[in-house]
Amino acid sequence: MSTNETGPPTDGLDALLRPRSIAVVGVSSSGRGLGATTVRTIQRFGFDGPVVAVNPRATEVAGVPCYPSLREVPHQVDLALLFTGGDRIRDSVLDAAAAGVGAIVIFASGFAEGGADGAVREREIIELARAHGIRVLGPNCQGVVSLAGGLAATFSNALWTDEIGPPSPVAYIGQSGAIGGAVFDLGRERGCVPALWISTGNQADLSVVELADRALDDDGLRVLMLYLESVPHADDWIPLCRRAAELGKHIVLLRSGTTEVGRSAVASHTGSMVGQDEAFKLASSAAGVVVVSDINELVDAAMSLVRGAAPSGRRIGVVTTSGGAGGLCADMSVELGLEMATLSPETTASLIPVLSDFAQPHNPVDVTADLVSGRPHDLGEVCRLVAADPAVDHVLVVVSAVVGKIAERIARGIIEARTCSETAFSVVYLSSHDRTLEVRRIYAEGGIPVFDSIGAALRATSHVVTAGSVGTTVPTGHRTPAPSDAPAYRVLTEAEGSPVLVAAGIAVPGGRLTRSRAEAEAVAGELGDDLVVKLQSPQILHKTEMGLVVVGATAAEVGALYDEMTARAVRHAPHAVVEGVLVQRRVRSGVEVLIDVQVQDKGYPPVLTVGLGGTAVELYADVETGLLPVDHDTALQMLRRLRGWPLLDGFRGGPVHDVDAAAQAIVATSEVATALGPTLVEFEINPLIVHEKGHGATAVDFVAHLEPGAAEPIVRPSDRDSRPVGAEVSR
Amino acid sequence: MSTNETGPPTDGLDALLRPRSIAVVGVSSSGRGLGATTVRTIQRFGFDGPVVAVNPRATEVAGVPCYPSLREVPHQVDLALLFTGGDRIRDSVLDAAAAGVGAIVIFASGFAEGGADGAVREREIIELARAHGIRVLGPNCQGVVSLAGGLAATFSNALWTDEIGPPSPVAYIGQSGAIGGAVFDLGRERGCVPALWISTGNQADLSVVELADRALDDDGLRVLMLYLESVPHADDWIPLCRRAAELGKHIVLLRSGTTEVGRSAVASHTGSMVGQDEAFKLASSAAGVVVVSDINELVDAAMSLVRGAAPSGRRIGVVTTSGGAGGLCADMSVELGLEMATLSPETTASLIPVLSDFAQPHNPVDVTADLVSGRPHDLGEVCRLVAADPAVDHVLVVVSAVVGKIAERIARGIIEARTCSETAFSVVYLSSHDRTLEVRRIYAEGGIPVFDSIGAALRATSHVVTAGSVGTTVPTGHRTPAPSDAPAYRVLTEAEGSPVLVAAGIAVPGGRLTRSRAEAEAVAGELGDDLVVKLQSPQILHKTEMGLVVVGATAAEVGALYDEMTARAVRHAPHAVVEGVLVQRRVRSGVEVLIDVQVQDKGYPPVLTVGLGGTAVELYADVETGLLPVDHDTALQMLRRLRGWPLLDGFRGGPVHDVDAAAQAIVATSEVATALGPTLVEFEINPLIVHEKGHGATAVDFVAHLEPGAAEPIVRPSDRDSRPVGAEVSR
Repeated sequence: MSTNETGPPTDGLDALLRPRSIAVVGVSSSGRGLGATTVRTIQRFGFDGPVVAVNPRATEVAGVPCYPSLREVPHQVDLALLFTGGDRIRDSVLDAAAAGVGAIVIFASGFAEGGADGAVREREIIELARAHGIRVLGPNCQGVVSLAGGLAATFSNALWTDEIGPPSPVAYIGQSGAIGGAVFDLGRERGCVPALWISTGNQADLSVVELADRALDDDGLRVLMLYLESVPHADDWIPLCRRAAELGKHIVLLRSGTTEVGRSAVASHTGSMVGQDEAFKLASSAAGVVVVSDINELVDAAMSLVRGAAPSGRRIGVVTTSGGAGGLCADMSVELGLEMATLSPETTASLIPVLSDFAQPHNPVDVTADLVSGRPHDLGEVCRLVAADPAVDHVLVVVSAVVGKIAERIARGIIEARTCSETAFSVVYLSSHDRTLEVRRIYAEGGIPVFDSIGAALRATSHVVTAGSVGTTVPTGHRTPAPSDAPAYRVLTEAEGSPVLVAAGIAVPGGRLTRSRAEAEAVAGELGDDLVVKLQSPQILHKTEMGLVVVGATAAEVGALYDEMTARAVRHAPHAVVEGVLVQRRVRSGVEVLIDVQVQDKGYPPVLTVGLGGTAVELYADVETGLLPVDHDTALQMLRRLRGWPLLDGFRGGPVHDVDAAAQAIVATSEVATALGPTLVEFEINPLIVHEKGHGATAVDFVAHLEPGAAEPIVRPSDRDSRPVGAEVSR
Repeated sequence: MSTNETGPPTDGLDALLRPRSIAVVGVSSSGRGLGATTVRTIQRFGFDGPVVAVNPRATEVAGVPCYPSLREVPHQVDLALLFTGGDRIRDSVLDAAAAGVGAIVIFASGFAEGGADGAVREREIIELARAHGIRVLGPNCQGVVSLAGGLAATFSNALWTDEIGPPSPVAYIGQSGAIGGAVFDLGRERGCVPALWISTGNQADLSVVELADRALDDDGLRVLMLYLESVPHADDWIPLCRRAAELGKHIVLLRSGTTEVGRSAVASHTGSMVGQDEAFKLASSAAGVVVVSDINELVDAAMSLVRGAAPSGRRIGVVTTSGGAGGLCADMSVELGLEMATLSPETTASLIPVLSDFAQPHNPVDVTADLVSGRPHDLGEVCRLVAADPAVDHVLVVVSAVVGKIAERIARGIIEARTCSETAFSVVYLSSHDRTLEVRRIYAEGGIPVFDSIGAALRATSHVVTAGSVGTTVPTGHRTPAPSDAPAYRVLTEAEGSPVLVAAGIAVPGGRLTRSRAEAEAVAGELGDDLVVKLQSPQILHKTEMGLVVVGATAAEVGALYDEMTARAVRHAPHAVVEGVLVQRRVRSGVEVLIDVQVQDKGYPPVLTVGLGGTAVELYADVETGLLPVDHDTALQMLRRLRGWPLLDGFRGGPVHDVDAAAQAIVATSEVATALGPTLVEFEINPLIVHEKGHGATAVDFVAHLEPGAAEPIVRPSDRDSRPVGAEVSR
């Protein structure tokens, strides 16, 4: 794709992106329709190799030679664009194979997106192409544009204009051609023309991820705008993010229509806390990918990144022709997690002689109408002074309805200030487009991004700063089990799992699983009064609701409780396997913390969730989520980010709790989950009781779901039933 | 302001809005500067009365006669526009008075917005004008435009264009002229030209609210866009909202730069929960005002309202040329509280023959590229069918990069569909402006609002639907105390306030305030074991943190606790007045609810806040807020809207609590607060313990702040200290 490489295509991707010759198959002999349109677009963009059409009923169409079949084209064809539909596509693929074509684009729809029949036909065609070594873009796509190579193999009308300026080092690669067309057109108008543009449609063969990976090889590209309709596999996505970060390039991601990914429906009340896309989003953000939620935001963020308008921090200096707009900037900055910079006394002093009499030299700097009408060029000087303040990471200039020559003088002043500064700049133009097309073009050519609203500018800044600040902590991929239709997990109860926790260094209450009334009474006798008694069954997850947990029992009560609980379990859950009754010492005083690990689909690492207090988790969703593995510092950060953190840290003069022990338990959970590897489905300690500082933390309930075929837990005591499991280890 | 009224001005407002003659004072003899610009703008808009300039050094400027002074103009002047500055303004006002001018506009800045000196000069000028019966717009403003009357008395360059189309029944009235200019220009481009436009600047005399009230008289206006930089007094604002609602007109409000309103800094930990603008926002929203947060949103919402694009409900039917964009619409609708409509089987059946082969007849309806390129007009037919479905409240059409003739044919099809339908329509145009100026004009002329992004369109819809659905529950104004510099409240402790609660029907624990160790021991003897012991001092609000509350004391411990607590109070708060020690029966088992009433500034009714559970209130801000008075149904709704509501309603199989008793206590609190009237500052029950269903609710702690001069509480027991206060009334 690089402009300087002109050798023959070395693979199908090369044939797609740097073809030496193109054949357009299915061009109407009338010269109308999408095929002919595409022929004309290809010619207009100055493709410098042979272009031919294929149609048995013509010898020339749209100004190019026309042949009855691909087989009869008298020269090598690298790229074939198929505008044929239905059954003829199969013939076209066979012709392409015979003609030695390297890549084809299938524009027709009516394949996998239409249902099962289409999916079968789509698979057959792709298999046929693969069998002949041909790479396929599509079907149901809008083609490929590579401006550096003069390639415009698309019918998208986003390219039906002669006013396309020089390309920017930006690519759009996405499934949707319509969204791609909007992105191209919006970018073009703002001087941010995508040098590479690919619509992958159903991506039956070539995917957004594979093409993005190839685009990273191009030295002429710095920002990739990607649009995805489903979550790619982590084995593809995470290395792509890692490569982009290593190369200092940016990915901006728009994702739509969250599909029902086939994640196992884990039987757990915390299941709803972590959305199915969560690991994908976490992995993307952790890798510095800018995740946006609207088409305009995709272009805005890319424009900010490519124009060097990606600030180094969150402190905004506002220069405005409207005091009211300055107030709105301040309000919205706070909402978006940005800050209004405090200008230094030096900056304030230097602003005074430049500003009008009644203008205040504070951020936001309202230059007032006097300066705008009398000395428009000085607005640039104000920007230069604000940009020079070390407290300012980003200069946001808000220009209200200013038009004509004054607007142009303001623009040139701002561009000059930008040119002399290391600080990021952006402009909000609060004016109609019809009166400001020319001045917007001046900003675009001057390399300053222009936004249509304060909100849009600040959102782009917030996106870009957030992505910049997370650095390049790209997570590693993770092996996960193949999806299974039968949700028949192997459930590890607290009694079974306790040895695993103890081995990992997580304290559990003193106690033991008992299998008869007599045994329960005996264990109670060992442990003394103030006990917790719980029925254990892998099928009964919500014991409390079924009255199968008693807290604060005396030793004398335990025998009767054993009988009651086992009887109640049989009554309420006749098919449940009852392992026995767990008799434990009651653990007192502490703050309840939830630690949960859930496996993710498509190769993403498991997600670890921490929450504070049982009620807070459920009612307030006060949880923090991270990707495995979690280290001690990350664990502490996650705890501190909880809104309920004060409860651990001396709420209302209360005790400070052992947050180090809590963090250790989180790390240990992360390690156990990692060790369980592909057998893990979910692993939850709920709650971990965090005691006062210096007194550790104890896991008082626990459940794990493993894959049906999983081996026994990694740590297995030699004789689990004959000794009290665990001990209240003080950490 | 109505076009048909042409009589002489009957008051200063008439002179401003419907002048028969205008004098522009301070026009440079060179014909340059803002004054001369304004003269030209006035002429260009066809003002049909005499226009003169005032300047001692010219006899004609910018094509109009020029006089040395207002006094020497040979005819009546209704409106004088002052471009003079500094001391000359005073002379101009005296001249205006002598000439019988009805209203003046002061454009100059350097008054109250610049500091104390400017504020003094501003006040002097306004007093002078008032003394002569002259109304003043400004200072620091950009004037007034009333297109129906051919009046364009402004230097705003938003009017420097010949392409202003017919006015829409929309007004902009706001402090900022720059924001006003942007609103005018953005509205004009979208075919939503404000018929009335006023910048009030410092609004030293005429305010946004007074002018908006006058604008409601104009039958030609249906939507008022208001921009405010401070909260108006409730006595002005609430009647305005009420009138607008009664007249079926809409107010869209943009508020910026929340100022530090002079609300008394009430000493309470819940103070931070309710922002200072809260009552203003609640009152505005309750009255159906559309509250927006960005300039573009102001124009977008007004455009939706004036174009009949205000849907009757939240169900959106999407017709799109891009399947990807349809997915984004679905994602964002959910986030914004809208719904994707489910199309009826009839609609689905009728769509199939119109759609292309591979298009799915489900919402969002992706018409596919085939239909766009082959049968663009049929997109209108698809819209018509979707709009006809009773399940669809709003048709959102998303047009991706479609330009030229096809775009125009699509536009005409959509306009035709809209014309035949009762359903609201809007269009998102995902294209550059430079290639779609003409087609956007077609939509504007066809009465269909066009938005630049999916997010903008859905936000406008959400704003408008929400405002429409709250109806016209306009709150009544409320008398509040005059602001006082000295924050010396009279604090009512629990012991003092309990009789007030009991009289209102709110149960309190059995117990009594004691003033000696012996008395404390005696009361404890009456009450038995399991007591709550609390020190009472109006200066000590956070008793728990200071160890001045003991829960679960036995009767035998009370004597010693009395001594300890009084000693600790003296040690930690030597200046606090200790009323005594409250000895109460402990109230067990229940859910804690907070009820708080806080007085508001500027005449707004007090705000009542309900929260669930002490920790949830503080850490999770789980509160609901409403304006006084609160009735039983509203109280129940507020409780149900709390995220912690399940705790009251049988959380995890737990007990159902007495929510009726809680609601009764909320209503009783509302009544007590209303009865306290202007003496109230804050009144808080924290917590009210809500018992299990049928067992009522008990207020176990309480504090009130009253104005220093407040009379004793309305309900006063004859001998407070000699009998146990209150009783555990089961309700």
